[in-house]
Amino acid sequence: MKALIFDLDGTLVDTVYAHALAWQAALAEYGIETDAARLHRRIGMAGDLLVQEVARDNGTKLSPAKSKSANERHGELFARLAPKPRPLDGAVELLRKLRQRRVPHGIATSGERDSIRPAIAALKLPAGAIVVDGTSAHQAKPAPDLFIQCQRRLRAPEKDCFVIGDATWDVLAARRAGMLAVGLLSGGYGEDELYRAGAFRVYRDAGELLGSIGHLGLSL
Amino acid sequence: MKALIFDLDGTLVDTVYAHALAWQAALAEYGIETDAARLHRRIGMAGDLLVQEVARDNGTKLSPAKSKSANERHGELFARLAPKPRPLDGAVELLRKLRQRRVPHGIATSGERDSIRPAIAALKLPAGAIVVDGTSAHQAKPAPDLFIQCQRRLRAPEKDCFVIGDATWDVLAARRAGMLAVGLLSGGYGEDELYRAGAFRVYRDAGELLGSIGHLGLSL
Repeated sequence: MKALIFDLDGTLVDTVYAHALAWQAALAEYGIETDAARLHRRIGMAGDLLVQEVARDNGTKLSPAKSKSANERHGELFARLAPKPRPLDGAVELLRKLRQRRVPHGIATSGERDSIRPAIAALKLPAGAIVVDGTSAHQAKPAPDLFIQCQRRLRAPEKDCFVIGDATWDVLAARRAGMLAVGLLSGGYGEDELYRAGAFRVYRDAGELLGSIGHLGLSL
Repeated sequence: MKALIFDLDGTLVDTVYAHALAWQAALAEYGIETDAARLHRRIGMAGDLLVQEVARDNGTKLSPAKSKSANERHGELFARLAPKPRPLDGAVELLRKLRQRRVPHGIATSGERDSIRPAIAALKLPAGAIVVDGTSAHQAKPAPDLFIQCQRRLRAPEKDCFVIGDATWDVLAARRAGMLAVGLLSGGYGEDELYRAGAFRVYRDAGELLGSIGHLGLSL
């Protein structure tokens, strides 16, 4: 039996653009000016890793305490920009079919517990849905830890797991975990970026993946 | 003598992500729900063309009057999200060097006059700078009209004009106008998307273009 492990932002909920703008505004308050497009390509990493990398690119450094506050400030600004995250096309239906057919599946996201709650609510997941978040992992993506934790909770061997994500970080972390990765364009990456990272297949969004689910050896 | 024709949003000012979110919210008010990533790839088109295409993809149609109001609503929401557009890395310096060396250059954008004023101000352009906007063109990008109007005002033959833009629309319109196009990643497109559209060269942002300006046969 195959199992599916989903990223959250840009894969199931339409939050990547709001995250990019929230990071841009939060970092500017800490003196770090960066183009939104560069932040866009870093969404999905752990927040503290993102702050470190962007600071370094700007030739500066934030103390761990300031990095933590910048991360929290990003959370506040994001909640203002996207108070009710919108499920991406096909996401709610795909998840519902997976439940109906009892296909093991879960969510593995670098986001932290409190900040992802509205997204989980928007997806209408039942109580008991498997969600692994950045709070519980030693290392967030592109480390494979989150996907491996999710896989263990699904009790599926890694060779039977597909990771579904919108970012090159998802694809790289999946490969490090020994899993195949399916890319979705709904987070705004280009198709070639995902294929070059090593995606097994790339679809437009969760809806197109549902229509092509036979490619993964499943029928829904 | 070479001449440079610049796109505005995503090329000189960091406004693409705010435009995507503003379009998403404006169209939702007219019953059209679309993922931000799909709107992102349509920024740079004329507003009414964007509305038509998105409506059609959603299996609906807006009357010309409603399309106009949705476009205006987008303008209002954009002004709230990005009241002071931020110049992209290297843009102000590149434009200043072009003025100092008296290299003919101008801006050609699908945006309309009132809505682009804050961006023009942020770029510190002198009075008399050449700016062709969507108000004055019969057809906005990907039609070549805006670039051809700008070229005429620069009094340069098209074979000596380089178009600098972040979107595949810029690259396609440039080619239709008989000009070479340089892509910039600062609007969030992937490198391959721009090369596949036919870009002569792709750089990270205006700053990297300035450092590589010799590739275009200029020295600054």
